[in-house]
Amino acid sequence: MTDDLSSYADLDVDRARRRGYPEAVFCAGKTPEQVAGIAAALREHTEAVTLFTRAGDEHAAAVLKVLPDALHDPVAGLLAWPPEPPEPTGGRVVVVAAGTSDLPVAREAALTARYLGRDTESIVDVGVAGLHRILKHVDLLREARAVVVAAGMDGALPGVVAGLISAPIIAVPTSVGYGAAFEGLAALLTMLNACAPGVAVVNIDNGYGAGHLAAQISAPA
Amino acid sequence: MTDDLSSYADLDVDRARRRGYPEAVFCAGKTPEQVAGIAAALREHTEAVTLFTRAGDEHAAAVLKVLPDALHDPVAGLLAWPPEPPEPTGGRVVVVAAGTSDLPVAREAALTARYLGRDTESIVDVGVAGLHRILKHVDLLREARAVVVAAGMDGALPGVVAGLISAPIIAVPTSVGYGAAFEGLAALLTMLNACAPGVAVVNIDNGYGAGHLAAQISAPA
Amino acid sequence: MTDDLSSYADLDVDRARRRGYPEAVFCAGKTPEQVAGIAAALREHTEAVTLFTRAGDEHAAAVLKVLPDALHDPVAGLLAWPPEPPEPTGGRVVVVAAGTSDLPVAREAALTARYLGRDTESIVDVGVAGLHRILKHVDLLREARAVVVAAGMDGALPGVVAGLISAPIIAVPTSVGYGAAFEGLAALLTMLNACAPGVAVVNIDNGYGAGHLAAQISAPA
Amino acid sequence: MTDDLSSYADLDVDRARRRGYPEAVFCAGKTPEQVAGIAAALREHTEAVTLFTRAGDEHAAAVLKVLPDALHDPVAGLLAWPPEPPEPTGGRVVVVAAGTSDLPVAREAALTARYLGRDTESIVDVGVAGLHRILKHVDLLREARAVVVAAGMDGALPGVVAGLISAPIIAVPTSVGYGAAFEGLAALLTMLNACAPGVAVVNIDNGYGAGHLAAQISAPA
Amino acid sequence: MTDDLSSYADLDVDRARRRGYPEAVFCAGKTPEQVAGIAAALREHTEAVTLFTRAGDEHAAAVLKVLPDALHDPVAGLLAWPPEPPEPTGGRVVVVAAGTSDLPVAREAALTARYLGRDTESIVDVGVAGLHRILKHVDLLREARAVVVAAGMDGALPGVVAGLISAPIIAVPTSVGYGAAFEGLAALLTMLNACAPGVAVVNIDNGYGAGHLAAQISAPA
Amino acid sequence: MTDDLSSYADLDVDRARRRGYPEAVFCAGKTPEQVAGIAAALREHTEAVTLFTRAGDEHAAAVLKVLPDALHDPVAGLLAWPPEPPEPTGGRVVVVAAGTSDLPVAREAALTARYLGRDTESIVDVGVAGLHRILKHVDLLREARAVVVAAGMDGALPGVVAGLISAPIIAVPTSVGYGAAFEGLAALLTMLNACAPGVAVVNIDNGYGAGHLAAQISAPA
Amino acid sequence: MTDDLSSYADLDVDRARRRGYPEAVFCAGKTPEQVAGIAAALREHTEAVTLFTRAGDEHAAAVLKVLPDALHDPVAGLLAWPPEPPEPTGGRVVVVAAGTSDLPVAREAALTARYLGRDTESIVDVGVAGLHRILKHVDLLREARAVVVAAGMDGALPGVVAGLISAPIIAVPTSVGYGAAFEGLAALLTMLNACAPGVAVVNIDNGYGAGHLAAQISAPA
Amino acid sequence: MTDDLSSYADLDVDRARRRGYPEAVFCAGKTPEQVAGIAAALREHTEAVTLFTRAGDEHAAAVLKVLPDALHDPVAGLLAWPPEPPEPTGGRVVVVAAGTSDLPVAREAALTARYLGRDTESIVDVGVAGLHRILKHVDLLREARAVVVAAGMDGALPGVVAGLISAPIIAVPTSVGYGAAFEGLAALLTMLNACAPGVAVVNIDNGYGAGHLAAQISAPA
Repeated sequence: MTDDLSSYADLDVDRARRRGYPEAVFCAGKTPEQVAGIAAALREHTEAVTLFTRAGDEHAAAVLKVLPDALHDPVAGLLAWPPEPPEPTGGRVVVVAAGTSDLPVAREAALTARYLGRDTESIVDVGVAGLHRILKHVDLLREARAVVVAAGMDGALPGVVAGLISAPIIAVPTSVGYGAAFEGLAALLTMLNACAPGVAVVNIDNGYGAGHLAAQISAPA
Repeated sequence: MTDDLSSYADLDVDRARRRGYPEAVFCAGKTPEQVAGIAAALREHTEAVTLFTRAGDEHAAAVLKVLPDALHDPVAGLLAWPPEPPEPTGGRVVVVAAGTSDLPVAREAALTARYLGRDTESIVDVGVAGLHRILKHVDLLREARAVVVAAGMDGALPGVVAGLISAPIIAVPTSVGYGAAFEGLAALLTMLNACAPGVAVVNIDNGYGAGHLAAQISAPA
Repeated sequence: MTDDLSSYADLDVDRARRRGYPEAVFCAGKTPEQVAGIAAALREHTEAVTLFTRAGDEHAAAVLKVLPDALHDPVAGLLAWPPEPPEPTGGRVVVVAAGTSDLPVAREAALTARYLGRDTESIVDVGVAGLHRILKHVDLLREARAVVVAAGMDGALPGVVAGLISAPIIAVPTSVGYGAAFEGLAALLTMLNACAPGVAVVNIDNGYGAGHLAAQISAPA
Repeated sequence: MTDDLSSYADLDVDRARRRGYPEAVFCAGKTPEQVAGIAAALREHTEAVTLFTRAGDEHAAAVLKVLPDALHDPVAGLLAWPPEPPEPTGGRVVVVAAGTSDLPVAREAALTARYLGRDTESIVDVGVAGLHRILKHVDLLREARAVVVAAGMDGALPGVVAGLISAPIIAVPTSVGYGAAFEGLAALLTMLNACAPGVAVVNIDNGYGAGHLAAQISAPA
Repeated sequence: MTDDLSSYADLDVDRARRRGYPEAVFCAGKTPEQVAGIAAALREHTEAVTLFTRAGDEHAAAVLKVLPDALHDPVAGLLAWPPEPPEPTGGRVVVVAAGTSDLPVAREAALTARYLGRDTESIVDVGVAGLHRILKHVDLLREARAVVVAAGMDGALPGVVAGLISAPIIAVPTSVGYGAAFEGLAALLTMLNACAPGVAVVNIDNGYGAGHLAAQISAPA
Repeated sequence: MTDDLSSYADLDVDRARRRGYPEAVFCAGKTPEQVAGIAAALREHTEAVTLFTRAGDEHAAAVLKVLPDALHDPVAGLLAWPPEPPEPTGGRVVVVAAGTSDLPVAREAALTARYLGRDTESIVDVGVAGLHRILKHVDLLREARAVVVAAGMDGALPGVVAGLISAPIIAVPTSVGYGAAFEGLAALLTMLNACAPGVAVVNIDNGYGAGHLAAQISAPA
Repeated sequence: MTDDLSSYADLDVDRARRRGYPEAVFCAGKTPEQVAGIAAALREHTEAVTLFTRAGDEHAAAVLKVLPDALHDPVAGLLAWPPEPPEPTGGRVVVVAAGTSDLPVAREAALTARYLGRDTESIVDVGVAGLHRILKHVDLLREARAVVVAAGMDGALPGVVAGLISAPIIAVPTSVGYGAAFEGLAALLTMLNACAPGVAVVNIDNGYGAGHLAAQISAPA
Repeated sequence: MTDDLSSYADLDVDRARRRGYPEAVFCAGKTPEQVAGIAAALREHTEAVTLFTRAGDEHAAAVLKVLPDALHDPVAGLLAWPPEPPEPTGGRVVVVAAGTSDLPVAREAALTARYLGRDTESIVDVGVAGLHRILKHVDLLREARAVVVAAGMDGALPGVVAGLISAPIIAVPTSVGYGAAFEGLAALLTMLNACAPGVAVVNIDNGYGAGHLAAQISAPA
């Protein structure tokens, strides 16, 4: 088998035109060589930002060799190229991390929304065990067009926030917690069962998907 | 124990003001008497629409005795009062039922979005086994500000639609299918894992939640 | 096979002395005849209250034929004999039902705690979708020695209450909710993963167990 | 992103006043730098003990660099600062480890209860396969105001102990056992289904939660 | 399609010779007509007992029409023909029902073992919540060559009994209990994880399988 | 909402041309009125057979009112119209029912394959508990181009058959068995894990899918 | 214990004659020494190809030491000996990898089908998020006698492809995806529930099984 | 905390007298120091064999330092002391490993049964994909008083063997297989659902438990 690009990938470079948002490169499960090959092919396509998600250290190094000026955020495991995010348009996205341990996922969401063209703000460590912490941010939350909430353990925060504001919540369960968190399953179920309507759920630890959805919801009309 | 309202319910009549959307009454698990008591208490609150969801025949009869002019849609198991939906504002919501068996859930979503103030359109029986059926509706789908897709079995339709348009998809798994559908669990997982970003998932058979989220997303800026 | 008592039951009438709390009769899975036989045998043991739990209509009729003055609460599916609860001792137990649909379980808990000798108070319909509803009861909650919280759907309320008070919370998941509530599993996991420490979890819909535990915790020192 | 404390944590230093128990720092999922930052911020707050739980070697080193005199128990993965536990008040907490392999969890529970102000005693290796081992400790168990039982595999011990005493049992499933223990799930289910009432269940391997709950239950009236 | 026997069944009448134990007819999922047809075909084969298991009322009526003198035990849902059990040989089988609700399963086990040629004894209502109840039967248990223990809820009894005797335990989980019993799954897992070795597990509510296994284990050498 | 066909279905009458096999109508979850409406619309399309699957009594009556000469097999819950199956072409399909209780599913598979144009043969009651029963059919099995095996409980038969022949096996788990069969899940997993390669698995109780797949595999080259 | 071959393996060298396809050696769970011993024993059996599947680096080295000219494909974790595949007969097998990360599984399937005697073609990176990518390969897909589709995440591609062609699809779920993919479980369920009939499912990541099944289906008549 | 034996273990040295079989030391989850401490304490108790199970390399080294002449079988992860097994009594135990990968578990079972006093024989690599392999051992199997069958993947072998002989089968699921084997869960369920009665199931990979049970079943009368 040859290892030219067509043997392992068929880039959807037309997606930005078709959907309004560019394709991202999900690095997990790809070899660094494959990621580098994709990066090289994208070098010609500067009309839209490309995100490389779930990028480990080796993936990042491979991308940076090809696209040396790409932005690299190791906490979020994300690279963006071209490195300059577009001018913000549409409504604001607020990203909330219930606890410090949820930060990597929240950051992936915030960077994604920002690179897809939205203005973003972040709030951290506001779990429901101390309600006063989230309540002091209600004004900021009410100004958002979409709110991303990343939470592990009981995953209760998105439902509580949903009860306070009119904008939709995008809830991202994280794989943080003791044994019966079952790697995010508990938080996922909590979010799907939120008493307050207005909670949209995405996959466990999928900050990229949350940020993408937030960018779509808060897109200019 | 007395059976006056305060012994079994504490209405959140202020929710419309606080969140912009009124509280709904989830009838499952309540006695018809309790539902009737709530209906009576709401009779004074005409400033916002109240939806009674998951209403069985006895729930519906109890509500209609108190609020005889309420709208009642038996397929969706939903009542609305006052019966006139508000003037549509904001963007349009398109509701898609993958198959005929998904119609009750899709209808609950469409009615909810309509009563919360949105213009709605519906598309039925467009499962991925015959792609041409959904492809012929692409123009209608692209005009929506939010698209609800109700699907059982493999739950693959939301991801396919997400790849075609830029608006966010609200995916509702339905409990339709053979044994390994596990009452909607298979469709739920499919939707959470959709390859195409832009898919927000709500609870199984929760047409109300889907319609509410769609109304929020497509609210006027 | 004969059907005298010893062929199907071996009463633990000594339990009140040994543990301080009498045995209860779990009716589900027993025939009305068996329950009646047990009731007849207990007629001689008035030194402690006997509770018949999970009693359907036929179970209740069978008990009442033998013990006509027994208390019967059909909502909770519970009978108590002798019908007079003991004088309250120890601390107070507050029982919270997150929603109207959680009332049967909450009532079983409250009656159990009351018949085991505690003073009880109840709060209803205070789900996290409208935080102000629970916050207005904080003073009452803070006076309790133990708080039972029955909640279905996302089961988020116990964790929120735990963050507000110093007494332990006994969380009872209920089987109320849409499909992905999985008959109480979602609420159960939420409660086990509560961010706030101080949440003790019992079995789904097990109001009896919750009330028993509350009575033990708030027993006189 | 800056890495000052506010970018990753919002300490709830007021919790001891509000709930009567201080906040703990859950280290898993936090970087050593973040944990050190939190430790530094807490240095000023000596009015209550802070526990660092689930602390790996790197977390411990980071804390000890900032708070060199903190107590560190590597088996339990726990640090406490200030290192002196408070004078015991309230009732006694007895902590039971069903087997040797359950010791780390039991120890975390015992240290937590001790640092939250209770007198504690420990019992080890008393699984139900040899009932005489637990039976010889019945007197000690009956003197407790709350009993923590950590058990893996079949998790049967808490229910057996509950049948012997009047104090409430806090059952902690541990992730010890053969394949079908499913990392503590089997023990968790056993405990939730204990035949004997009086068993409160916490999360798998959550010794901290168990100790906290025990401290609350046995608090001075 | 014709409905002669060969269109729906191929009797293994040779099994008694090959395995030493005759085939049983599992009635669930068969029509009464099919069961009657099988009964008619077995009328010629009196050399070994045939058991009809999981027989509902209609199945039983159909069998009794063809084999009017068959033994019918409605509690166990079992019929046996010829109705006289064989002379007991081999060791004794003791069958234990943890609670009254476990009796139907225990009875199916006891009758199966008896009809396959063993002497049997039964013990009822000896759950672990009151250990003295099982301890008073230790002598009887120690005389058995095999002990069947049927238990629902926490399923802890088989492990406790295994720790007391040298004979093997056949543990049958029953589908009795509150929600998180998950129709016998909790008890099944408990039994598979029993701390004491010597516990053999069979399917949920499968009294027939337990009795068969007990008969094999206690067969004459 | 009107109830003309377009409001609940969009027939894929072109499927026979596109895929070579016509669309089937899955009746479960549809109202009898909807099924009748579809039947009426299909009356014009005699160029291919239409199957109505999972048809309950009311569905069947509704279809037969519109298409009185349709074949109706109540055991399989299937109707076919036009009632005459096509001339067989391609290879032969052999359908095996492991036990009598698996017959409804096996029959649905056999009828589906027959109506899609294949010659079929059936074998019943040949479970692995008596290997000689399946071994005596090896010659018939070896002549097949595709073999469908429907089995519940342990679902072991497809793997055993696969080891004996060269044609592919289509394994259909059925929801037959004791509690830990979990409505077909156990058989499903067994089949997916068959030691012998050559086992293709379809959904639980999905005889239609199995028959369809068999017809495709044994289609003329 | 000796370590001659008979102490750990009983080769089924007759399988090629009996089933038409040779036995493969599943390396996972075997020691390199055991694999080498099997390779040595097979050296005499050149009449059919032997595949070594799931071979890690140490397994591969052990095989190559004994059979130095064996083909080794490290991506697929597969070795074949003799290294020359047979002349293709029968119909063509087309193997589709939904994404780049599914390539190892797809490659194992393609190599297996090729070594069992089929002509194969491969298609990569054609997920449903961009339908045009798969649609441009429809002609190639329609020429196949069997199509293997490897897909992770939502696993939706096989159902979409099945709706386009008449040949059977062999769907292989892969363990690629975010948390709620549950290591391939989500894709597995999707495939079992495919709306379009004609989808045969094999085990997660089981490229070998998929290739084997494809070779059987497309075997010469 | 001190680290004398009583702080982490309470040996049940009386078990051999009480149950007829000595206690075993489950090493997983214990530190090497703890295992060494237990070994030292047992040095005085030569009246019965002690088995150390699930012993990793460090555990083994620690035991051998204290008991240098102990038998150590690294494949089975087992040590025995004193190293000489007792004279065989009772019936014979035959241990079957379905595949080579199941050998470690089978070996643990065989060694356990042997050290508990039984004569043992082993059979390897006789999976159901080639029935002739197990059929050639039927005579040996029929001479056994108990048969242990270790099998992963589909776990079908125990049910097949049970159909051939009259002795009870002890089925041990192993964690061998592709993804949907779910670490032995699939095999476990298969075994619990075996069509043939006479299959006793133990925990996944629990060769010790299987061997213990086999020794009990085949004990002298």
